Amino acid sequence: MTDWFETLDGLHAAVWGTLSRGVTDASHVARRPTFATVSPGNWPEARTVVLRSADRAGAALTIHTDLYSDKIASLRSSPRAALHIWDAEQVLQIRLQADVTIQSGPGLLPLWDSIPDHAQQSYGARPPPGRPIAQALDYAKRPDPATFAVLHCDLAYIDVVHLGAIHRRASFSRDRHWGGQWLSP
Amino acid sequence: MTDWFETLDGLHAAVWGTLSRGVTDASHVARRPTFATVSPGNWPEARTVVLRSADRAGAALTIHTDLYSDKIASLRSSPRAALHIWDAEQVLQIRLQADVTIQSGPGLLPLWDSIPDHAQQSYGARPPPGRPIAQALDYAKRPDPATFAVLHCDLAYIDVVHLGAIHRRASFSRDRHWGGQWLSP
Repeated sequence: MTDWFETLDGLHAAVWGTLSRGVTDASHVARRPTFATVSPGNWPEARTVVLRSADRAGAALTIHTDLYSDKIASLRSSPRAALHIWDAEQVLQIRLQADVTIQSGPGLLPLWDSIPDHAQQSYGARPPPGRPIAQALDYAKRPDPATFAVLHCDLAYIDVVHLGAIHRRASFSRDRHWGGQWLSP
Repeated sequence: MTDWFETLDGLHAAVWGTLSRGVTDASHVARRPTFATVSPGNWPEARTVVLRSADRAGAALTIHTDLYSDKIASLRSSPRAALHIWDAEQVLQIRLQADVTIQSGPGLLPLWDSIPDHAQQSYGARPPPGRPIAQALDYAKRPDPATFAVLHCDLAYIDVVHLGAIHRRASFSRDRHWGGQWLSP
């Protein structure tokens, strides 16, 4: 009997199974990956995002964001992201590297219209996210499709570590057509 | 009655209280921040680390790592890190930016000797972490103080968001002697 974490195929399937679970289950840890970028001033940055879609066949993920958030400024200067998930239940660390394309504008209106009102509140803060304000509540939420952006993350590399009694680590890369490679953990 | 998340001082204290809790409570989410760096090839990277100390007076944190891990190579080319904690219980996102100094060598022997045997297993994998191996278990754990490193993180910037019914966001920076500033969330 072979456990899922003992084979490259099993680990690869676990990565995509976990990402898919994050998309469909709002309470799952994979719903909220940490999304790291490089700032225009060359600082690493990390923040929580919400995973909106995961497509294993296309090796692609999507994230929604405010077009005026700092991550957009960072992605415009360096269009790459790292995503990180630590799933304590599966003792599984998932690390992803992705090339990121920013989509915004009228083409997103059908998607915007499909987003529930309370979720639209996340896009269109005035002043824009991260700007100084005099008091904590000196801002307004004005849902605005003109500030809505989709980050298309095309995966380049997956690094996964299973931290069971015995540690196992593997990578999967686009350059090798997603073939797996064991790594020293 | 003012809640802790309604004042700058309250948020600042919550950041340090959460970090201190992570140091002392192995089961707390702040024990395992996500640690982001910039690779020599300019990719953002993120991985889980274990928080070992948090000193509010010195605005400093420490992390232990293997001297041959990829994060060391990254920090040698770009000695800056971002740390990220999402504490669902407090609905608090903590984002930190830090200048990082790498310490290794004989000066760490007293600290090394204080680390339990099972924890020493994390330092000295052969081949070094991240190197390709033919099979999953083609590696050995050989605890070795020569591969043990301490990352001294001198904080430059704190960004904290309280995601209660009403969102509040603030920053605290070394440049302003840790004075706080409300930000649009």
